[in-house]
Amino acid sequence: QEEKSNTFTFTEFQKDKAFTPIVAVESWLTYTTDAGKDDVDYADRGSASLRRLRFGAKGSPYKWLSYEIEFNLDRIGEDPYAAIKGSYSGLDVWKAFITAKLSKDDLLHFHAGYYWAAISLDYMASPWSVSSFDKTRSDWFLRNFMTGKGNGIETGIGFGGLKNFDGFGINYQVGAFSPAAFNGPEHANPLLTGRVMFSIGDPEQKTYKVRHAGNHWNARNGVTIGLGGATIGKVDNGSGTAFDKSKAYGADISATKGGLKVEGEYYKMKREAAGLEDFDGTEWFIRCGYNIPVKGTFVEPTITYDSYEGEGSSTLFKQIGDDKTFDIGVNWYLNRDKLKLSLHYVDQGGSISSSVGNFIGMALQVRL
Amino acid sequence: QEEKSNTFTFTEFQKDKAFTPIVAVESWLTYTTDAGKDDVDYADRGSASLRRLRFGAKGSPYKWLSYEIEFNLDRIGEDPYAAIKGSYSGLDVWKAFITAKLSKDDLLHFHAGYYWAAISLDYMASPWSVSSFDKTRSDWFLRNFMTGKGNGIETGIGFGGLKNFDGFGINYQVGAFSPAAFNGPEHANPLLTGRVMFSIGDPEQKTYKVRHAGNHWNARNGVTIGLGGATIGKVDNGSGTAFDKSKAYGADISATKGGLKVEGEYYKMKREAAGLEDFDGTEWFIRCGYNIPVKGTFVEPTITYDSYEGEGSSTLFKQIGDDKTFDIGVNWYLNRDKLKLSLHYVDQGGSISSSVGNFIGMALQVRL
Amino acid sequence: QEEKSNTFTFTEFQKDKAFTPIVAVESWLTYTTDAGKDDVDYADRGSASLRRLRFGAKGSPYKWLSYEIEFNLDRIGEDPYAAIKGSYSGLDVWKAFITAKLSKDDLLHFHAGYYWAAISLDYMASPWSVSSFDKTRSDWFLRNFMTGKGNGIETGIGFGGLKNFDGFGINYQVGAFSPAAFNGPEHANPLLTGRVMFSIGDPEQKTYKVRHAGNHWNARNGVTIGLGGATIGKVDNGSGTAFDKSKAYGADISATKGGLKVEGEYYKMKREAAGLEDFDGTEWFIRCGYNIPVKGTFVEPTITYDSYEGEGSSTLFKQIGDDKTFDIGVNWYLNRDKLKLSLHYVDQGGSISSSVGNFIGMALQVRL
Repeated sequence: QEEKSNTFTFTEFQKDKAFTPIVAVESWLTYTTDAGKDDVDYADRGSASLRRLRFGAKGSPYKWLSYEIEFNLDRIGEDPYAAIKGSYSGLDVWKAFITAKLSKDDLLHFHAGYYWAAISLDYMASPWSVSSFDKTRSDWFLRNFMTGKGNGIETGIGFGGLKNFDGFGINYQVGAFSPAAFNGPEHANPLLTGRVMFSIGDPEQKTYKVRHAGNHWNARNGVTIGLGGATIGKVDNGSGTAFDKSKAYGADISATKGGLKVEGEYYKMKREAAGLEDFDGTEWFIRCGYNIPVKGTFVEPTITYDSYEGEGSSTLFKQIGDDKTFDIGVNWYLNRDKLKLSLHYVDQGGSISSSVGNFIGMALQVRL
Repeated sequence: QEEKSNTFTFTEFQKDKAFTPIVAVESWLTYTTDAGKDDVDYADRGSASLRRLRFGAKGSPYKWLSYEIEFNLDRIGEDPYAAIKGSYSGLDVWKAFITAKLSKDDLLHFHAGYYWAAISLDYMASPWSVSSFDKTRSDWFLRNFMTGKGNGIETGIGFGGLKNFDGFGINYQVGAFSPAAFNGPEHANPLLTGRVMFSIGDPEQKTYKVRHAGNHWNARNGVTIGLGGATIGKVDNGSGTAFDKSKAYGADISATKGGLKVEGEYYKMKREAAGLEDFDGTEWFIRCGYNIPVKGTFVEPTITYDSYEGEGSSTLFKQIGDDKTFDIGVNWYLNRDKLKLSLHYVDQGGSISSSVGNFIGMALQVRL
Repeated sequence: QEEKSNTFTFTEFQKDKAFTPIVAVESWLTYTTDAGKDDVDYADRGSASLRRLRFGAKGSPYKWLSYEIEFNLDRIGEDPYAAIKGSYSGLDVWKAFITAKLSKDDLLHFHAGYYWAAISLDYMASPWSVSSFDKTRSDWFLRNFMTGKGNGIETGIGFGGLKNFDGFGINYQVGAFSPAAFNGPEHANPLLTGRVMFSIGDPEQKTYKVRHAGNHWNARNGVTIGLGGATIGKVDNGSGTAFDKSKAYGADISATKGGLKVEGEYYKMKREAAGLEDFDGTEWFIRCGYNIPVKGTFVEPTITYDSYEGEGSSTLFKQIGDDKTFDIGVNWYLNRDKLKLSLHYVDQGGSISSSVGNFIGMALQVRL
């Protein structure tokens, strides 16, 4: 009704971009060996399960405003005696956040909602495109340490952006989160997070996205170095979780040349409280994969080793001891990360889950 | 295959109208002050949360038959020590009902399913378009009194319709519901509800909808007066909820002229049981807003005051005491109620939640 | 980018077939009589509920690969004192599985995920198209016996297919499942299932589907005989469910000629453990319906009787005693099984739920 010049252009609803359904299924067949508990050896076993079942929607109802909402119903039918680690089962919200693009270029985006309080490479990694059978267990400890949750997703706000120059690029994310595990009556300190990535050669991202690509499909030659850190002040949630100060920091690297990808991260976790021994943890991994193009698909032999060690007071962080995983396998990306078949052997050790066992796993991943 | 004249026309499936996704997000940033409990003062605090996360579908698979199904996952990440009131968290069904249009005109519609047992203005109001920061707390007490649930949505059947004349209109809804809170072995009395609205000037609704519009975008000059009542007979749910008779009734008004809207409601609640002091409650609110058109958008300064008082036996209704909220703020409707930014100050008092605190809140609401 | 001949054709994503929403609502109005418990007679009562609320998605993202994901939120608002039997309430996954077509013809399909461990006619039947008011209660006992769950859906893998000749057809399904109720540390025996169907006359299915049609809309003249069986070895779930061997087997028949359909099944259940009396169960039903075409719709008077009897140790299967249901009613398929109105009388007896009562039920079923 009104003339174009008399209305704001940023209020124009983009009907065709407002709704895209999310559907993703990851079906696992595993064969577990060497599992047990205390003095009971579990019978070796095959098990079928849905490791991930995700659904939701995303869209850009306005040119500058997008959203992502995803629900999870993971680990359906997982045999509790199989050697599979994980935190989530049952139907719940996985992520739900909005992103507002505040600058004309890619320099400034605002995020609000329930999303990753991420500081490290594998924290940000998509499980659909990592080359190991699953995301590293070591990074699970970092996420759990920072947020009290296995997926490291919490409510908060943040900013992110990137700037690419010729042969060099910078990418950043900062945020303030209030993890439910740390809500308490007398203290209300936010979890502050920051991450910066420097890329040499081809950029890690051409346009800004919250998460980076796990696989560049032989199209990137470049190295990215990331630095990340998080800190939170005094916490007392009134039911046992209490400390004076907690922080995590570290660095990571990701290098791709043609089909080859080498990546790894190294992060430290520290927490202290008066009268208790400091908690000190370290988690790191190294992962290597090589994409072989086969008639429009990619076959990727891959190997990963990850490690976590934590010592100090278990009152400050209950994961005391060590945890190691060795993963070797091959992935067949039939339609990139939308249709993927995997066959891996996963060897799991360490004192924290000493008798969880090992397994051979086949996965079929289908995403819209 | 068959000739048109040999088939019923009302069985024709409308493929293009059968499915429309519902996605709605309301992201809150609040800063709470003056909260506490017993002798503990809570630390003032900022908090990010998703006040509402809704998704589902609606459609009209047949010309005369429509449905609405909506799921809620509200209050994600809400700090339990923030001064935010509310009843729902976790994933659940919000509403799910079908509507059959039984008359050629708008006089007779049949509803069945899980929907509003509504009798008052704010009971029917959409949280997406009320001008206060949230729906009134006072009406929450009415809904809770009537159904045992904060949102007042229960399973039932009902009828509704409207008839508009020149400068005058009538709108009605009647229903019979069986609130789960009142199901018991020995009594099976339905909750009967009724509401009638008389409009002078422009009609409140041009075509019948279950809920009325919260904002007429400066296009209506008219006054609507509503009368509503509900009654239920003897209830004994076998686990403590028991009474002989319960009823609620009252009136409301909504007047709009150009950008100005003034509205309010006044409802009484009464419940009795042999040997117990009668319960007597009153809830009312008044709300005033003024839409200022700005280049296709609307900026609305607004003010609301609501009040609840309940006295008598807490066995009959546990909300004994009073509850008051004063809300002042401004809303910016960027794309009507599909994209809305709000900044409000909410002052909360009364003996029922004496130390819940006050807050400044910013909200961003996005709906498809 | 690459030439057609250099890429696999089976990796081509079918965007337009990848996502179809599932929405289905079954609204019930019932009037219960003769219900009670111990010495308490329940008041006769009307009740509105949503017997089934289902939503999800299905699609064929690749020519050879399809998926079905469905969530259930059944029995919303069901009065616990109404004479309605059922197992599920709350929001949960109903089914989630993928199907890969492995042969050019319909001979070999692979299923993986969370789906029916089906061996009998009513096990496979769609509740949306059976002519009785609901699926038979007797088959519920078979499903519960086999999987520990009322819907008989569990995680597993399987194969299925069909081959139709002139006037004769064969259809089969085999599977291996790991029911959660039977997961235990010391034994990991799969539940093995098999079913074969022989059709004379018109085939039961022209193309392979996991489930068969409940109604052939007067277009099939044929008889199908089905044989099914299931077996599982030693089970000890560590919390009371333990046996040495368990099996189920039986036969069923489905005959349609014009509008007439007669169908039934007869299945035996056997379970044994050292030191306990063997469990022995039998379930059977017979159902008869007659479609009368009315201007493109179908009106179907129908009658069903089903029966379950179980004897032996209740430690092996807790359903000891008998359960009988007699159902008579009429269905009006306004748009086949997408829009259906039903009016039935359901008489329920037997020692297992001796005082559950009887009811008259009206149902309106709407599906996309």
